[in-house]
Amino acid sequence: MPPQHDKLYLTRLGIDSYKEAVIYMREDCHVCRSEGLTAHARVRVTLGDRFVIATLNTISSEILEKDHAGLSEYAWKLIGANEKDLISVSHARPILSMSHVRSKIYGNRLSAENIKMIVEDISAGLYADIHIAAFLSACAGGRMDMEEIVNLTRAMVNVGNRITWGTGLVVDKHCVGGLPGNRTTPIVVSIVAAFGLIIPKTSSRAITSPAGTADTMEVLAPVELNIKSMRRVVEQENGCIVWGGSVDLSPADDLLIQVEKALDLDSEGQLVASVISKKISAGSNHILIDIPVGPTAKVRDISAAQILENYLVTVGKELDISIKTCISDGTAPVGRGIGPALEARDIVAVLSGDSAAPLDLKERAILLAGHILEFSPDVTEGQGMAIARKILDNGRAWQKFQAICAAQGGMREIPQAQYKHIIHAPHSGTIQSIDNRKIAKIAKLAGAPYTKAAGVDLYIHVGQKIDKGAPVYSIHTNSPGELTYSLNFLAEGNHIIQIKED
Amino acid sequence: MPPQHDKLYLTRLGIDSYKEAVIYMREDCHVCRSEGLTAHARVRVTLGDRFVIATLNTISSEILEKDHAGLSEYAWKLIGANEKDLISVSHARPILSMSHVRSKIYGNRLSAENIKMIVEDISAGLYADIHIAAFLSACAGGRMDMEEIVNLTRAMVNVGNRITWGTGLVVDKHCVGGLPGNRTTPIVVSIVAAFGLIIPKTSSRAITSPAGTADTMEVLAPVELNIKSMRRVVEQENGCIVWGGSVDLSPADDLLIQVEKALDLDSEGQLVASVISKKISAGSNHILIDIPVGPTAKVRDISAAQILENYLVTVGKELDISIKTCISDGTAPVGRGIGPALEARDIVAVLSGDSAAPLDLKERAILLAGHILEFSPDVTEGQGMAIARKILDNGRAWQKFQAICAAQGGMREIPQAQYKHIIHAPHSGTIQSIDNRKIAKIAKLAGAPYTKAAGVDLYIHVGQKIDKGAPVYSIHTNSPGELTYSLNFLAEGNHIIQIKED
Repeated sequence: MPPQHDKLYLTRLGIDSYKEAVIYMREDCHVCRSEGLTAHARVRVTLGDRFVIATLNTISSEILEKDHAGLSEYAWKLIGANEKDLISVSHARPILSMSHVRSKIYGNRLSAENIKMIVEDISAGLYADIHIAAFLSACAGGRMDMEEIVNLTRAMVNVGNRITWGTGLVVDKHCVGGLPGNRTTPIVVSIVAAFGLIIPKTSSRAITSPAGTADTMEVLAPVELNIKSMRRVVEQENGCIVWGGSVDLSPADDLLIQVEKALDLDSEGQLVASVISKKISAGSNHILIDIPVGPTAKVRDISAAQILENYLVTVGKELDISIKTCISDGTAPVGRGIGPALEARDIVAVLSGDSAAPLDLKERAILLAGHILEFSPDVTEGQGMAIARKILDNGRAWQKFQAICAAQGGMREIPQAQYKHIIHAPHSGTIQSIDNRKIAKIAKLAGAPYTKAAGVDLYIHVGQKIDKGAPVYSIHTNSPGELTYSLNFLAEGNHIIQIKED
Repeated sequence: MPPQHDKLYLTRLGIDSYKEAVIYMREDCHVCRSEGLTAHARVRVTLGDRFVIATLNTISSEILEKDHAGLSEYAWKLIGANEKDLISVSHARPILSMSHVRSKIYGNRLSAENIKMIVEDISAGLYADIHIAAFLSACAGGRMDMEEIVNLTRAMVNVGNRITWGTGLVVDKHCVGGLPGNRTTPIVVSIVAAFGLIIPKTSSRAITSPAGTADTMEVLAPVELNIKSMRRVVEQENGCIVWGGSVDLSPADDLLIQVEKALDLDSEGQLVASVISKKISAGSNHILIDIPVGPTAKVRDISAAQILENYLVTVGKELDISIKTCISDGTAPVGRGIGPALEARDIVAVLSGDSAAPLDLKERAILLAGHILEFSPDVTEGQGMAIARKILDNGRAWQKFQAICAAQGGMREIPQAQYKHIIHAPHSGTIQSIDNRKIAKIAKLAGAPYTKAAGVDLYIHVGQKIDKGAPVYSIHTNSPGELTYSLNFLAEGNHIIQIKED
């Protein structure tokens, strides 16, 4: 017997379309016919008390039986589907909040209520990727004012989960990014947690870089913890380093970020709202934000850093949290490795006191940990760094890091890449500069962050003398094709490292 | 024997994802593994000397055999695939022109060269829908200046097919739109072609309205002609009314329009470039552009109309074509029917001299045809309308229309909707106004333009007296679900028609 007029049985087709909800329906099925549904239509798929808004792809082959429909894996999980479940399908109603997005595109301000509607609709999954792309494009390029950013932040806090840790001091850190290899977080968290402060750190995966902290940490331990597990780790060890996406603190932000990533688009207002909303949702009340400045970093000069600092501090104040910023040197990559596994190796070297550990990464971690320790009423201003250095040097941070990894599910071996290609100095001289953006590009072309072992390993630092033919850096990859992309990029005349002849 | 490292056999899965190129590959296939490809990656799919850039969806079920891949129907047709063809798959290179889109988002101007690169990449299919959405959002809201619009228009002419008709006068018309039921084109083309001028009319399908001219004309005759067939029709009958998408005059524009439609976004610069590039590609050199003005039309007041007029005339001049504009009354819908089939019925009534034909549609068609006839050196200024009226009244236009329909593939019967719901006057009085946008919304909720017979039939016009309980309009639909959407929209307190009590 055929199901009701708007109903179809589910078949799991196993199609992974990433974070886009898609429904697959036979173009000759009774629902497409009776509802006049054609490919690209947005439909509402209901199963029990759950629903998802999906884009329709019609099927003209036999991969679906009569009276059956399929869902992309993302949509399948969102509504908790099982094989043969009976879903109902109807036209999706127009997204009312898109009229506010259009209004923003036309140059108008968004009210608190407008922003609330947009963020709620995004987190409810009503927006397709193109709607999100339009919203991001309308708000990027400095087109949001302070009040809009405050309202966006508040709206993003309100739609996700929120963790509370009692009434005490809860600290956190964030780095605005753009510096390849700048992976201080696992070191900082270990120092701060060893000292005794609560630091429930959630990190992101790479947005436009070769590795996010979550990608790098995942090399060393599981990072996809749910809130319950995260709470257990923090209650036991004072700190954690987990992927923010899996604790669902900011579902709207996670959707925004995947489109930003595909567009390679960074927006100031979005960045401020994204950072602060996640910290508040994680229950933090004292946050240190590191803003590296350099010609090829994300923030290119001091005045841009000060504008961003002003946004961060003001939005923090409006939302009742204390934000301290640290404008730091962002002229060159930090550490040696760029890419998840190579960065993980550097982190372990610093924490374990390896004599070959990159000194710049160690000093930067001590600086940031020092600032955070000074949030504590027990630490006098100016003494934070000395305390941080001691906790790192005496091995307590390394013990804490291993304990956190164990609590998150067990420490892992660092993988090695299958192919390694060394680039040599074309002439002798002194290293003048390293282009952060281009070195990141090579690491990405080599497969980072998707391939953990892929990336770039730097053998030199700025100011160092080098002989002709000496190794400058190596490209690590698991695929000959990706090695070719990296080498082609170099062959096109891209200068990554400037060597001044003496 | 397994195919080479980057090669897979094609299986036709028959998945219609509209105009998005998608490749389906098993997540465990040798290409995904060796290249480190995961869902959402952009890949280059090559078959012989053709290629397409597609978004990867990975498959974890048995709908694909080992060593096989599928393509969305759009991608399948773009590369001219056949079952079991051997394709090669590699990472797509980053889209270089997206850096110009990002620059535009950040508020910078686009150079002629930037725009050329963007348009070429769009028409080559390198942009996914989200990239197009970002480009449209960055350019909408008056963010393109005159030079950018000129360059966009020129770039769009250069990427598509271009038809030439010798050296003589070739006329065309366009209506900026926003008036439901304003379907003068088939009448105007019939009059002008009967007079003897060449009018190779290509029309669009609905972008954000309940029917585009191509949707309405398709009710009466085939409109998906290729360039060769279009040329035959025009050479035989002086004119045609075909869908612009099938003659591929502006492949970039067709891709832009489908995303504009999904975002419900109209952009002035895009509109000017879209209209003029298509006319030039169709070989026209004298164009009349109708700009209806009214509070609920697309152009809301005279000053906005004049800005648009200035853009159109200036861009036309820069591209060596003559543009005449006609700012007309856009306060209320034109004719009776709104939706493809109902509008087609009105057109036939006017052309065939039916005494019940809507007078406003007839007069508007005569006005526009009159202006176009005055492009002819044989017609004195001020005499165009009289000539147009005569050709319509003596049946020559009706004969010409039937001949055009026959040449395009044969005239068709107009379909009737299965359900018809009449709305009655809540009280007596005089019709004050009709809301173009809301009446269009109801027609769309009823299924127009996808369901040809769906739409709204108006029984009244502004200024008319009406008794309580008299029929005001009817909603036509083929689906009970869609009737419900329309009625819900009314139930939410949307006032479509204002009746002033006497």
